[in-house]
Amino acid sequence: MSLDFGPAVALSCRECGARYDLGPSFACLECFGPLEAAYEFGTVTREEIAAGPANIWRYKKLLPVPGDVEQKRNMNPGWTKLVKAEGLGKSLGLKSLYVKDDSGNPTHSFKDRVVAIAVEAARNFGFHTLSCSSTGNLAGAVTAAAARAGLEACVFIPADLEQAKIAMARVFGGKLIGIDGTYDEVNRFCSELIGDPIGEKWGFVNVNLRPYYAEGSKTLAYEIAEQLGWRLPDQIVIPIASGSQLTKIDKGFKELIALGLVDDKPYKVYGAQATGCSPVSVAYKAGHEVVQPVKPDTIAKSLAIGNPADGPYVLDIARRTGGAVEDVSDPEIVSAIRLLAETEGIFAETAGGVTVGVLRKLVEAGKLDPELDTVVLNTGDGLKTLDAVSSVAAPSAVIKPSLDAFRKVI
Amino acid sequence: MSLDFGPAVALSCRECGARYDLGPSFACLECFGPLEAAYEFGTVTREEIAAGPANIWRYKKLLPVPGDVEQKRNMNPGWTKLVKAEGLGKSLGLKSLYVKDDSGNPTHSFKDRVVAIAVEAARNFGFHTLSCSSTGNLAGAVTAAAARAGLEACVFIPADLEQAKIAMARVFGGKLIGIDGTYDEVNRFCSELIGDPIGEKWGFVNVNLRPYYAEGSKTLAYEIAEQLGWRLPDQIVIPIASGSQLTKIDKGFKELIALGLVDDKPYKVYGAQATGCSPVSVAYKAGHEVVQPVKPDTIAKSLAIGNPADGPYVLDIARRTGGAVEDVSDPEIVSAIRLLAETEGIFAETAGGVTVGVLRKLVEAGKLDPELDTVVLNTGDGLKTLDAVSSVAAPSAVIKPSLDAFRKVI
Repeated sequence: MSLDFGPAVALSCRECGARYDLGPSFACLECFGPLEAAYEFGTVTREEIAAGPANIWRYKKLLPVPGDVEQKRNMNPGWTKLVKAEGLGKSLGLKSLYVKDDSGNPTHSFKDRVVAIAVEAARNFGFHTLSCSSTGNLAGAVTAAAARAGLEACVFIPADLEQAKIAMARVFGGKLIGIDGTYDEVNRFCSELIGDPIGEKWGFVNVNLRPYYAEGSKTLAYEIAEQLGWRLPDQIVIPIASGSQLTKIDKGFKELIALGLVDDKPYKVYGAQATGCSPVSVAYKAGHEVVQPVKPDTIAKSLAIGNPADGPYVLDIARRTGGAVEDVSDPEIVSAIRLLAETEGIFAETAGGVTVGVLRKLVEAGKLDPELDTVVLNTGDGLKTLDAVSSVAAPSAVIKPSLDAFRKVI
Repeated sequence: MSLDFGPAVALSCRECGARYDLGPSFACLECFGPLEAAYEFGTVTREEIAAGPANIWRYKKLLPVPGDVEQKRNMNPGWTKLVKAEGLGKSLGLKSLYVKDDSGNPTHSFKDRVVAIAVEAARNFGFHTLSCSSTGNLAGAVTAAAARAGLEACVFIPADLEQAKIAMARVFGGKLIGIDGTYDEVNRFCSELIGDPIGEKWGFVNVNLRPYYAEGSKTLAYEIAEQLGWRLPDQIVIPIASGSQLTKIDKGFKELIALGLVDDKPYKVYGAQATGCSPVSVAYKAGHEVVQPVKPDTIAKSLAIGNPADGPYVLDIARRTGGAVEDVSDPEIVSAIRLLAETEGIFAETAGGVTVGVLRKLVEAGKLDPELDTVVLNTGDGLKTLDAVSSVAAPSAVIKPSLDAFRKVI
């Protein structure tokens, strides 16, 4: 089997640094640490990136994908809008605020980014089926990408997910299996399945393809920097589910500095959780270095991972950069969704309510400098979590089509 | 009041050619024909367009907007994906098929394009409130754009719309008035309201701002041509609600030819309706030049306009270009939504089911050449019309998290 992962040349253990050949493996044989892609980057210029396509493949020389990736059948996500959020900024008292709005991706969440990379890994390894454990968004991203790529799909979700996420995970034609349990139980089940003959030739995007998949989140860092005019933000607020996205955005920023694509400068990374699933925030506030698993209970289902694999790394990054980890309650999430909608015309899913809510809380607590360039992520779409705004899911008034009737209601 | 509409210099009557100063007017005083923007275009090159932003403002020199439009608070829609649809093409027996997927717009329908232009017109005329009659998508686009632009919003919809569209029209904070009646009744009510003192200083995007608003649909033509490598498609399938979008795509193609941005060549325009609201298709098949209004009864609510204002122009364009107008039943719409999802990973709303269903019907009837470059439009998002796919809105199976349980269901 001839593999083509572009600039990625090996897998390396994030804990002990042991190196492995590129393959569908995810845990270090020495220390059980997580493996991630290791690169030998060639020269990359701002100009060639700018001349690339309006999707994540403009950064293909920084990703574990073949050089001809834009010719393949792929969803081609990314290059979503970085919205200059003057309305929200004014409301919160922030001078220079941007919303990175990933609801513009093909299946309307940032998951399209990571799945796009996993599809190329699945092709490289000759897998016929794409699979995942998912809190909802990932299931839709995987089944859509599999449909486009001509792969089979079989995805696993907690059975109690939002209706819209279930429909979106099913309409693309793959198998959708509801598991009677939490996301963490779904995840454990998938790890078992990999060892079973059924799971042979299956690419579980967030298990045995994870070292490739996770790299997709780096593209958020690249896009934010490029869209700011090749400059890192001073402060960034990122949601925490497994914590992977946050660690990869940090990795992306560091790569851009190392490659000379942006000036080296300090930036503060803030992690955002829902109070009903806030193991990382709890650990951060207690000064712990490890994360105590919890059983999630929050409307922010896309962030409801009670045992976040990358929790310790998130704690490390928040502390190292001078950021923080904070959490907000379900009512604060709903309030933040509405604030973002009313000030920016952006309808975020609950995860976006979490980041905007945490941003608000950090500003109010003086933990974030209102004078500095700040980016807040919206990673999903409000249409997928309509229950969160059910209080406004009806007309202001219903009338007969007459001016008299209208005058009575305004 | 100093107006700045960029290259647009007047309004002109589409029927009699009478010219008027730019203003919030929409009907010819001579013959009651519809007014549209008239331009004096300067030089426009492919290079300067390519150097523009990844949204409709890359074409600002062809639109009735100020030259500094990209500095304003606007949703900045457009530059959505033109997906090379090899999967769907293979399934239908088409050699070269593309899906223009406008679900990637900020509120996930093509309406963001037209509203973006209307916002600039409202600003020009000093209006404080943005309004519309809507079958759903437009209401969300207007309220979002008003939120971003700092305008008030008050929008009108038939009270029986899909839940997702109602939520999306309300979450951005404007007033949402449900009218107990059809879209055509909502529309007539809005025309009354314009003459009333309440409606003074209101910009009804699809009534008194219509000559500007409607021009936004031209950007679909520009983008398709540019994304094809500055080439017109041979055949294009476009949904018909009022018919405005179809006429403006034709206008856009003709402008590109006149400006020398693409080579002159024939192209065939096909209109698509739902059988439950198919007045234009009926007229086309009967050889009529006028359209008999109908009372809509279809799941394709975003196309449910029983008295389409631009119907006669659509008939003319379909006949002149050698295209056709066709319609599909509600079951055919659902089947087409699923086919598009399963072959391309694109989840279309019912309007996209209409265009893909009509495409299939035209191919099967031999009315469309399978060898030629064909573009089919998806103008909205499946998340807004979930009821259409309710038959698949559940997991394939729900199981306990065990391999034994899984073996039993696969």
